[in-house]
Amino acid sequence: MNVSQQNYIAQLSIDCVIFGYQQGALHVLIPKLAFKGDYWVLPSGFIFQEEDIDQAAKRILKERTQLENIYLEQFHVFGKANRTNHAFMNELLKNNPELVGPQEDFDWFVRRFVSIGYYALVDMRKVKPQISSLDEKMEWMPLADLPPIILDGPEIIQKALEALRIHFDDHVVGYNLLPETFTMKELQQLYETVFDKPYRRNNFQKMVLDLGILERLEKKYSGAANKAPFLYKFKVE
Amino acid sequence: MNVSQQNYIAQLSIDCVIFGYQQGALHVLIPKLAFKGDYWVLPSGFIFQEEDIDQAAKRILKERTQLENIYLEQFHVFGKANRTNHAFMNELLKNNPELVGPQEDFDWFVRRFVSIGYYALVDMRKVKPQISSLDEKMEWMPLADLPPIILDGPEIIQKALEALRIHFDDHVVGYNLLPETFTMKELQQLYETVFDKPYRRNNFQKMVLDLGILERLEKKYSGAANKAPFLYKFKVE
Repeated sequence: MNVSQQNYIAQLSIDCVIFGYQQGALHVLIPKLAFKGDYWVLPSGFIFQEEDIDQAAKRILKERTQLENIYLEQFHVFGKANRTNHAFMNELLKNNPELVGPQEDFDWFVRRFVSIGYYALVDMRKVKPQISSLDEKMEWMPLADLPPIILDGPEIIQKALEALRIHFDDHVVGYNLLPETFTMKELQQLYETVFDKPYRRNNFQKMVLDLGILERLEKKYSGAANKAPFLYKFKVE
Repeated sequence: MNVSQQNYIAQLSIDCVIFGYQQGALHVLIPKLAFKGDYWVLPSGFIFQEEDIDQAAKRILKERTQLENIYLEQFHVFGKANRTNHAFMNELLKNNPELVGPQEDFDWFVRRFVSIGYYALVDMRKVKPQISSLDEKMEWMPLADLPPIILDGPEIIQKALEALRIHFDDHVVGYNLLPETFTMKELQQLYETVFDKPYRRNNFQKMVLDLGILERLEKKYSGAANKAPFLYKFKVE
């Protein structure tokens, strides 16, 4: 691929933080570069001249996950002059000439970039991770135990998490991270994971029921049904 | 000024929504172009290659207001492919060749731009509005009664207002919009203006006191002092 010949806006990129939730832990989907060394990055891409930035983010996410209609939020622009770290990029690209392509691509990649951050919320079971020509692999990694991510990747993930917390109640984030039906305990576990703090069971139940976003389902009768917890689902707007 | 020869990042701009508060109304500071016709815009500018985007926003705001240390928040990126409206820009610039400069500048201005929105909160009494070489004048206009602003300016102002509301409690927005000391009634009036809804006096007082951000000052004794309302100021962190 000759990046520099594509009709992209120069010096502007999109970085995606793709969140999933499984076994009580938030995960992010990140590729490891096929470069010599241990370089993890965020899934990212560029914006065509005739493309909305939101559309570009959707396209990049679809390429990486094979999912349509992903829940997606623009959350911050990363624009420090030194964020690209030219020395590091030069070294990285020079050591892997076969991956980078022609000189024009090299020049294109090492310029200073401003990057627009988007976070996505996905059902991990539905994602079919797709690597790019620069990647060795792409994996779900627990947020609490991430490998080293290059440049300002860690800062971008941290900002995405902060935005996720702010949007949590307003945007029914849980709708995208939980299965269709769930118990109150499972919902509480998601909140405790996202906000990284414990809730008291009664307080939590009152808080989320007061939001008016949940529908309680009938218990199915079975042998031990009277002991089974209620299932809930999110009200669809 | 030959814009195209300056060392700016191409196709990327900053738009500023400068909020002030006076006589119970939010105002925004906007320039009117010196072009033929009635064209109001947002104060905007570009980013030097070696400049942080936050630094660029500060520089642009300082140029326009003569203020240092302005409260400033990045709030959204505007990146629809059609937001620049090439036909409109072509027409506008062609009709005012003496203002636009050489052909390279013309070409530079009519390309598609992605714009990063920042909002600022300022003390209106301290601002000394400065026009640019493209402006006829710059004025404080009440948010509720704005003149026609070109392109997606109205959308940018609306998004800035939404962000201001979200940040309101967290960031002690009032600190930047009110004088150093104020009455509970004045603070309530600010809230009612920003959120465009009435509050009940007792509820409002409890709500803001619970935030723990206010310090109540001693009443000064004077003839009618026992009837004078308490003054408050924000706790400095």
